[in-house]
Amino acid sequence: MAKLRAAVVGATGYAGAELVRILVGHPDVDLTLITSRKQAGQDYETIYPALKKFVRLACADSDTAVVAENADVAFLALPHKASMAMAPGLLGAGLRVVDLSADFRFKNQAAYEAHYQPHSCAHLLQAAVYGLCERFANQIARADLIGNPGCYPTSVLLPLLPLVEAGLVDLTTLVADCKSGVSGAGREATSTTHFCHVNESFKPYKVGGHRHTPEIDENLSIAAGESVKITFVPHLIPMTRGMQSTIYTKLSAGADEPQVRQCLESAYGDAPFIRLLAGGRAPDTLNVRGTNFCDIGWAVDPGSGRLILMSAIDNLVKGAAGQAVQNMNLMFGFAETAGLDAVPYPL
Amino acid sequence: MAKLRAAVVGATGYAGAELVRILVGHPDVDLTLITSRKQAGQDYETIYPALKKFVRLACADSDTAVVAENADVAFLALPHKASMAMAPGLLGAGLRVVDLSADFRFKNQAAYEAHYQPHSCAHLLQAAVYGLCERFANQIARADLIGNPGCYPTSVLLPLLPLVEAGLVDLTTLVADCKSGVSGAGREATSTTHFCHVNESFKPYKVGGHRHTPEIDENLSIAAGESVKITFVPHLIPMTRGMQSTIYTKLSAGADEPQVRQCLESAYGDAPFIRLLAGGRAPDTLNVRGTNFCDIGWAVDPGSGRLILMSAIDNLVKGAAGQAVQNMNLMFGFAETAGLDAVPYPL
Amino acid sequence: MAKLRAAVVGATGYAGAELVRILVGHPDVDLTLITSRKQAGQDYETIYPALKKFVRLACADSDTAVVAENADVAFLALPHKASMAMAPGLLGAGLRVVDLSADFRFKNQAAYEAHYQPHSCAHLLQAAVYGLCERFANQIARADLIGNPGCYPTSVLLPLLPLVEAGLVDLTTLVADCKSGVSGAGREATSTTHFCHVNESFKPYKVGGHRHTPEIDENLSIAAGESVKITFVPHLIPMTRGMQSTIYTKLSAGADEPQVRQCLESAYGDAPFIRLLAGGRAPDTLNVRGTNFCDIGWAVDPGSGRLILMSAIDNLVKGAAGQAVQNMNLMFGFAETAGLDAVPYPL
Amino acid sequence: MAKLRAAVVGATGYAGAELVRILVGHPDVDLTLITSRKQAGQDYETIYPALKKFVRLACADSDTAVVAENADVAFLALPHKASMAMAPGLLGAGLRVVDLSADFRFKNQAAYEAHYQPHSCAHLLQAAVYGLCERFANQIARADLIGNPGCYPTSVLLPLLPLVEAGLVDLTTLVADCKSGVSGAGREATSTTHFCHVNESFKPYKVGGHRHTPEIDENLSIAAGESVKITFVPHLIPMTRGMQSTIYTKLSAGADEPQVRQCLESAYGDAPFIRLLAGGRAPDTLNVRGTNFCDIGWAVDPGSGRLILMSAIDNLVKGAAGQAVQNMNLMFGFAETAGLDAVPYPL
Repeated sequence: MAKLRAAVVGATGYAGAELVRILVGHPDVDLTLITSRKQAGQDYETIYPALKKFVRLACADSDTAVVAENADVAFLALPHKASMAMAPGLLGAGLRVVDLSADFRFKNQAAYEAHYQPHSCAHLLQAAVYGLCERFANQIARADLIGNPGCYPTSVLLPLLPLVEAGLVDLTTLVADCKSGVSGAGREATSTTHFCHVNESFKPYKVGGHRHTPEIDENLSIAAGESVKITFVPHLIPMTRGMQSTIYTKLSAGADEPQVRQCLESAYGDAPFIRLLAGGRAPDTLNVRGTNFCDIGWAVDPGSGRLILMSAIDNLVKGAAGQAVQNMNLMFGFAETAGLDAVPYPL
Repeated sequence: MAKLRAAVVGATGYAGAELVRILVGHPDVDLTLITSRKQAGQDYETIYPALKKFVRLACADSDTAVVAENADVAFLALPHKASMAMAPGLLGAGLRVVDLSADFRFKNQAAYEAHYQPHSCAHLLQAAVYGLCERFANQIARADLIGNPGCYPTSVLLPLLPLVEAGLVDLTTLVADCKSGVSGAGREATSTTHFCHVNESFKPYKVGGHRHTPEIDENLSIAAGESVKITFVPHLIPMTRGMQSTIYTKLSAGADEPQVRQCLESAYGDAPFIRLLAGGRAPDTLNVRGTNFCDIGWAVDPGSGRLILMSAIDNLVKGAAGQAVQNMNLMFGFAETAGLDAVPYPL
Repeated sequence: MAKLRAAVVGATGYAGAELVRILVGHPDVDLTLITSRKQAGQDYETIYPALKKFVRLACADSDTAVVAENADVAFLALPHKASMAMAPGLLGAGLRVVDLSADFRFKNQAAYEAHYQPHSCAHLLQAAVYGLCERFANQIARADLIGNPGCYPTSVLLPLLPLVEAGLVDLTTLVADCKSGVSGAGREATSTTHFCHVNESFKPYKVGGHRHTPEIDENLSIAAGESVKITFVPHLIPMTRGMQSTIYTKLSAGADEPQVRQCLESAYGDAPFIRLLAGGRAPDTLNVRGTNFCDIGWAVDPGSGRLILMSAIDNLVKGAAGQAVQNMNLMFGFAETAGLDAVPYPL
Repeated sequence: MAKLRAAVVGATGYAGAELVRILVGHPDVDLTLITSRKQAGQDYETIYPALKKFVRLACADSDTAVVAENADVAFLALPHKASMAMAPGLLGAGLRVVDLSADFRFKNQAAYEAHYQPHSCAHLLQAAVYGLCERFANQIARADLIGNPGCYPTSVLLPLLPLVEAGLVDLTTLVADCKSGVSGAGREATSTTHFCHVNESFKPYKVGGHRHTPEIDENLSIAAGESVKITFVPHLIPMTRGMQSTIYTKLSAGADEPQVRQCLESAYGDAPFIRLLAGGRAPDTLNVRGTNFCDIGWAVDPGSGRLILMSAIDNLVKGAAGQAVQNMNLMFGFAETAGLDAVPYPL
């Protein structure tokens, strides 16, 4: 049977490179096209020498017509704004699109525009599906356009959403203290990503102003049926891959730890990419490195009675490219784990 | 003038080694004695080759009489329990003592015993002074026995105590998300400190059960005049030195950011080892590495209205040995910065 | 068709864990047994939580009879000496054995005994095959007992052997400056593997006395048909995985760079796990992380005329478990890349 | 007594920042001026926040007349070419100059021009002194212009020069395998210094083409009285500071280890910044981090009989700014260790 033809638009950034890695090994997919505006014409293995012998493609320019001609599904690993310039044309040509930018993550156009820029195809926002696979699999299966979730929102929403929907937590007390490896800052060389500024350094950044806050808030609010405002602070860890979130909240009156456990087990007992760590065990980014897993732990603080939720993901996989491929798997009826089932490294 | 004779008891652990480093360079001190039970007889420079040419002492055994004979002040860098076995003898012999264990940090004997073990000289708890220098300088100056604060409590209490005393924060909403470099786990080789388990790993640990929680709670409660229970979760960062804390709290009714700023400036404007970072700037462990500084930042989250306090210290210096020497400086009337004023490394 | 039954004896060390990872994902193998003397009875996923959902086995004790009953092939990831106590029994029971210790790497019993200990089954040394796959594939295919090469020897011999066999290098001038990540020191927690001693540290070790020297010498000497003594110095890199070797030698009279290139291309043009980097490009451990590749580069120094050979491998994969599985593939007629063909991570 | 007025020209790069750090704490110096072409007008503490409370200067533009007016000694931490444009004017105005670029390191103008560019003030090359302090202290004391040695040459020449001068090594067999932390690549953000490309990576670079080769060769040749060509390969270590060199050579006929030891002890027994590690002990970059030390070890390989020399320095201190200040100390008759005697960190 002919395989699905896939294109990665914006293949030279880190999320793009992870998409290439996963799709090249995907049993149901033929990676037909990779594009880059800046590095068009360049052999991919000269950009990512690790992939020598695996990827023999050169980068094409990022042209809508060329993508439309060569692919059935397009992954857009582009900056915000570039995605919404390209998505309508691809959809019009009959492709299905998984967009890794923020352009199609919001239902609320005003929230998007307050934190990003004017939206050029807002009519697509309602049809687009927020691609948090474990929560919205049914809508994803029918969608033509996926807004692939941000890495921080993925790490916060997966543990929190089931509890919010079940009414187990006090929505006025939500705090998410999140930490990311440096690959989250992207491939561009800046003073922020310079080894000597990051190594042996740990710090919060964009305090009170990170653009993933409204994305988290919108999804919490939809789940709660009321407006929710979380306090979210991102931090930078001196390592390449990995994201860990610790979330604090008061339990609702009458709620307790067994209910929390039951709620998470009921939500994720069958989810292939969620691993629940009972008994207060803490998720470790090392255990999810390179995988599409979200490991989730929880505990009730004996002193304060507050619930502590903890998650760990690989920001480039479950936080970006892996979840994008998982979305594709759901959209096209492939096994949910296809291309994402490599055995993790023990260390 | 004769210099003050100082002994470091338990000189081979990391806090002990930092004490040796600082005291060897201290202008008012003569480091006369370093001890180690396990490595007695060994030349110090074979244990810490970085100190070759600076420390020519060998480790003596940890014997109270020998310490009493050779020193005017003793730093106890011993495990909990070993300290309280030794302190009374030294005090009886007329020495003044700075203890880096938890044995003399608590006023509340029951709290200590609930988290550590039965206390063998509880009568000393009231006379001992909690050595958080920027808050208790007057008592420290007159003390014979200092309970040197834990690293996490230092990083949480310095930003938080002035605001608690001023009534600016809602005491029922306190959350401290804290992160430490690996040196905090001590010099013993364990699976926890194995390079391959720590490198490229980030994780919470001892969730809901770290023994610094009651230490923080006791000091917050004293400042507040009522019982306070903070939610505190420590995390391990893949780096050697450094501790960063992000603290979340609701402001009291009517309180706002300018009041927070004024309160901190009033508390710490003249403190030589506090650097206030205005304008929402975030403290970075890299900037305090190897120093006795506590860098403090703050911001009010625009969405939730919550106050976000941030601090960064070097866990081995301000969080241990540096603060211990600062305590000694206050006790003996030296310049507060004596021995602690090396210019920091820019990177 | 029934799959080959494989056992990993000594499954809790790092090489053992990599074997488990690879064999669990191997299409032709059924991992039936994993053993550990110290952690017998323990669920493997509690030891390596990354493997949760992939390995549902508990560790059995390391018993020859149990291994013989449950497996067709046994991988011995044991310390030196423990392997030679177990191998004869397994061979006698009809299993084929890949031994990752040094016990069966030497033809020269005296050389082994000079650097290790008396050999208890020296009669097996001649029948055992040195499992350097790219050089000895034919003998490996027929072997019942493989001495899987050491990590340093693999990284030195792969680039060097073809040139030695072709007579292109001056055998009296060989220097190998080699560097390894910390996982090479094994899983045991020691002062050598403590994060704070390794991080931000780079150093030579075992200078003039590493036991991989005689292993390299024996294989160079066999290839040269005369006694060869290389100068080999290992160094420790502050990272988890990876090994890089830079080898210096004078070219033989009349030899030049094109001959070197041709020789390497002729030796490795078809080898699936060798990637030759022409044009003086330097191998980077990052590009082989987690893979079974050996990347090889070379250049002639314009000033001194010396040949510089460079290689990079993952010490745990091509330097241990990956090569062991490649040996099994050759022994049992599987595709040489079976189980070892995951797409590498771009970063 | 009035202190010596010092200026750092090019104060925002890493070597410049280290100069600022050291000079601010130097007892005999008044740091009057720091300059930067790109960041003129900017407060230094906003560029290097670690130095808050220590450096209250803003960057001036890099103007010869302003420097000449405000300083007695100028440190030029500029790129090659920029230094030689500025040095003559400063010398003409009566200042003494320590130049950290390569512009005044060579006696052989042709060698300089072959690897850098045409020299605009070649008449100064003979008067300039190569500032390798432990070898050329007398000339340095009388010099007005110092060519401060490169980091790699410092790490190679300090262990090697005494042996070359004593005729103990075979000059045709010299190989230097050198490794540097990332700060050696400078402050500019490039793909080479991006955290994700460096972390968990180890690799050779500029193989056969690094510009420190002719600098090493010139100094070896002068010492030997004949033309010497070393084989030198630099490698990049995933850490911030530190440089380790392992040097291989055959001993001259009749030479042995005791002669090597005696030669090094005789050369460096009184040198305050050299620490000789007898007994085959290996230097570790961790032990010299932040210091002006060069730790030196040596061993004779029992198999090959080759001599193995090993050194460790901090590339930014002994390899750049520290040695520059040591040069100033020698030039102005200060204690050689003034400003450079902080007690090293034990870890």
